[in-house]
Amino acid sequence: MTPAATVWDHVKDQPKVKKKEFKKLEPELRQELVDLQQQLRGSNTSVIVVFAGVDGAGKHEMVNTLNAWMDPRGIVTHAYRRNDESANERPAYWKYWRDLPANGQIGLFLSAWYSKPLLGRVHRTLSPEEFSSQLEQIQAFERTLAENGVLLLKVWMHLDKKAQRKRLEKLSSEPDTAWQVKPGAWDNWGMYDRFMEVSNEIIDHSQRALTPWLLVNGKHRYSRQVRVAHALRDAIRDRLDNPPKAKGFADSTWNRKMRPSRGSLKKMDLSKDLSKDVYKKRLKKARRRLYQLQHQAQMAGLSTVLVFEGQDAAGKGGAIRRLVQGLDAQQYQVIPIAAPTKIELAHHYLWRFWQCIPRKGRVTIFDRSWYGRVLVERVEGFADKAEWQRAYQEINEFEEQLVTHQTVLCKFWVQIDKDMQLARFEQRQETPYKQWKITDEDWRNREQWDAYDAAVDDMITLTHRTHAPWILVEGNSKSWARIKVIETVCKNLEKALKKM
Amino acid sequence: MTPAATVWDHVKDQPKVKKKEFKKLEPELRQELVDLQQQLRGSNTSVIVVFAGVDGAGKHEMVNTLNAWMDPRGIVTHAYRRNDESANERPAYWKYWRDLPANGQIGLFLSAWYSKPLLGRVHRTLSPEEFSSQLEQIQAFERTLAENGVLLLKVWMHLDKKAQRKRLEKLSSEPDTAWQVKPGAWDNWGMYDRFMEVSNEIIDHSQRALTPWLLVNGKHRYSRQVRVAHALRDAIRDRLDNPPKAKGFADSTWNRKMRPSRGSLKKMDLSKDLSKDVYKKRLKKARRRLYQLQHQAQMAGLSTVLVFEGQDAAGKGGAIRRLVQGLDAQQYQVIPIAAPTKIELAHHYLWRFWQCIPRKGRVTIFDRSWYGRVLVERVEGFADKAEWQRAYQEINEFEEQLVTHQTVLCKFWVQIDKDMQLARFEQRQETPYKQWKITDEDWRNREQWDAYDAAVDDMITLTHRTHAPWILVEGNSKSWARIKVIETVCKNLEKALKKM
Repeated sequence: MTPAATVWDHVKDQPKVKKKEFKKLEPELRQELVDLQQQLRGSNTSVIVVFAGVDGAGKHEMVNTLNAWMDPRGIVTHAYRRNDESANERPAYWKYWRDLPANGQIGLFLSAWYSKPLLGRVHRTLSPEEFSSQLEQIQAFERTLAENGVLLLKVWMHLDKKAQRKRLEKLSSEPDTAWQVKPGAWDNWGMYDRFMEVSNEIIDHSQRALTPWLLVNGKHRYSRQVRVAHALRDAIRDRLDNPPKAKGFADSTWNRKMRPSRGSLKKMDLSKDLSKDVYKKRLKKARRRLYQLQHQAQMAGLSTVLVFEGQDAAGKGGAIRRLVQGLDAQQYQVIPIAAPTKIELAHHYLWRFWQCIPRKGRVTIFDRSWYGRVLVERVEGFADKAEWQRAYQEINEFEEQLVTHQTVLCKFWVQIDKDMQLARFEQRQETPYKQWKITDEDWRNREQWDAYDAAVDDMITLTHRTHAPWILVEGNSKSWARIKVIETVCKNLEKALKKM
Repeated sequence: MTPAATVWDHVKDQPKVKKKEFKKLEPELRQELVDLQQQLRGSNTSVIVVFAGVDGAGKHEMVNTLNAWMDPRGIVTHAYRRNDESANERPAYWKYWRDLPANGQIGLFLSAWYSKPLLGRVHRTLSPEEFSSQLEQIQAFERTLAENGVLLLKVWMHLDKKAQRKRLEKLSSEPDTAWQVKPGAWDNWGMYDRFMEVSNEIIDHSQRALTPWLLVNGKHRYSRQVRVAHALRDAIRDRLDNPPKAKGFADSTWNRKMRPSRGSLKKMDLSKDLSKDVYKKRLKKARRRLYQLQHQAQMAGLSTVLVFEGQDAAGKGGAIRRLVQGLDAQQYQVIPIAAPTKIELAHHYLWRFWQCIPRKGRVTIFDRSWYGRVLVERVEGFADKAEWQRAYQEINEFEEQLVTHQTVLCKFWVQIDKDMQLARFEQRQETPYKQWKITDEDWRNREQWDAYDAAVDDMITLTHRTHAPWILVEGNSKSWARIKVIETVCKNLEKALKKM
């Protein structure tokens, strides 16, 4: 007997609940769940239950049961299929991010992120390396959710080989359940041992303290229902009784772990400039090139995400407008990022950015972005230390998903010096139609110049990656900055197109 | 000279703004627009500017100008393309509803709802009847928006034949603008007169007091920009200075216009019942049939929308659960409707329902629905008289869009009598795990029984249509109601599938 097999042996030993007992337990259990659901509503926790496991082990029925027992306004089911075009045109996890429940809500996830690695590895369409990499991605995703307050319960429903055969036979024999036996289910049953082997690997790899698996024997209807319902009840109750004290743990090794600052900002030559003539010529040329490249990118299904960060009045908006002027309005979307709304605050901070990820061949331009987490939220204390320290890794993982999904990602930091900012602020105040651009907040931010400088330095040091590089843009000269931005986008598009 | 031609003659007479004058006007105009934008933010008005007209007349440039002048956080551009699959799998207007700006926001719409009738009629792919019907649909849509507080400005940008030729030549000659000359633009130019003829028809048909066209001579850059900007400024200012006093006008002929009540509710035989045995057998059979039909519907791309309305405790939720139990979770979505959220309140009341319209082959089930407008909102006074009276027509038009887009629509009214409701309320209060289902609000609603009865009667009288019929479900017996619901869905699916 392999050691792995013992996991399933344990499952077999789960106590059996008889119908009579179930009928006695059910009313109380329903009441507890509904009560907890109401308490959950006022909390800053959302609940995700992921169902995985053997075909015929009762996942579908369990989802129906929970839906029947609980208040439908607080519970929603997501079942994924392969042929969802809007999802397939975006990174693999886009659909899960899209569907994350808000705080106070419960989401039941079927055929979700464990399906692909399981089936792929069983049928060997995934190499061991690809399989491992998918499991790593799952870990990163689940950790990101859990660390940010999502209560994640993973339910693996098991059947032994004989029980699965019986169950499939039973389902097939009843006309109104026969559809539940999907094409390929019997083939899969023939590969039962292979399924178990891969399932073991998956569970081994993804069994974490923060996001544990609940292994459930799916053989007996009442037993499995009670086991899942009890676990859900206990998990929610425990979370409500013991809300996470801090929003995670600050990294005590923060300073040591950091790579030494590159001092990149200080090395920038902000005197760089372009004459009006050169600017006009290069702008024209760059725009033409950009249009042509974007046309090719659209044909090739290459997406583009552009991020603009920079001090107030650094010229982000102006650079974006020059960039898009040559593009077809059907091709791009500019997303100006302001303070999060109530519904955005009730989700992970990356949620709202995931919503805007472009489909194949399109361009999304963020005027400010997710980097707010490690800039304004860090400096102003809207995120606590643990939260913003965690964010660098989360952001790197997020961007990795973009670039591995045929997306050109350019991150621009537009830098001006303090004098230039003052000059622009004053110019804005003197130009009536620009006064709206300058607020008290801008002046307050200016007082924090050094704190922002340090945050920017950390940001660049910790999130500059080969495939998601920061482009430092000397912004004292607007024409220089605008040309550099457009030409850089062209260069990166060209490079990516060549690789396709 | 045809009378229609005179419209364009007027356009030619528009005053010309020279560069020097423009430079003097621009700062003030920008300031005014930005100021108005800020005032708009606090109002309950949203602004839509639809651009239509001749290729090369400067629509794209105008959109860029407005984006450059105004605060990007309050203005968004939507440009539509034909190959948007998620839109093409839904009724034609779904994408416009999806993109409606919230109150306080401005939306610029390019290649929107006027494109299809214009091109279709010019190239004669639309018959005169289809063309008329599309113009009617536009009228209904624009009226619905305008009556509900949307400020809708329609800008038609014109060029005479010679000016268009010159403009296309100029755009083509510049590498960075050549792309703006779309494939087919020259062919269209060759059909200039035909375009003008159809454009005249469109403008004639859609020139309404509430949603007027602004005709703009696109020949001169500064003139056209000033004309559009002034019109936008004046329209917003006028709206803010003169907010609509009432939310529309109540229909003084309400009673006369109404068809006499069918008294359908009173004729219902609520004693209808099924024995447990018959119930079980028919449930099994109906579910099997439903699954098979839904499978066929999916293959055929036939969508289904089910609406459940009924008194509190009428058994809507239970009927829905029995219905979906036999369906694959990937196929359907149940949408429980509660009070609207803040962002939903900042939109037309139909907006949130449009968001949930299923794609091809899928099922959306509404547990309560848009009928809340003429039920709870009417009875409780959340909507004023004008609003709920208007709603019957808006709802009929909305549902017509669904059914003409290969959608089976079943609307169930589940009816119980007052005694049965009391019995069920009491039972809920006595069953601990059902207590959450019964609130003070339910008891308050119960006191309004007669008012609801009248509202339901009006609703059925005014929104029962051949293709969107109300199905009255006798709800005193839960088993009767559940069987009737599933069997009715089956019957309607079968009928629709046969027609395909």
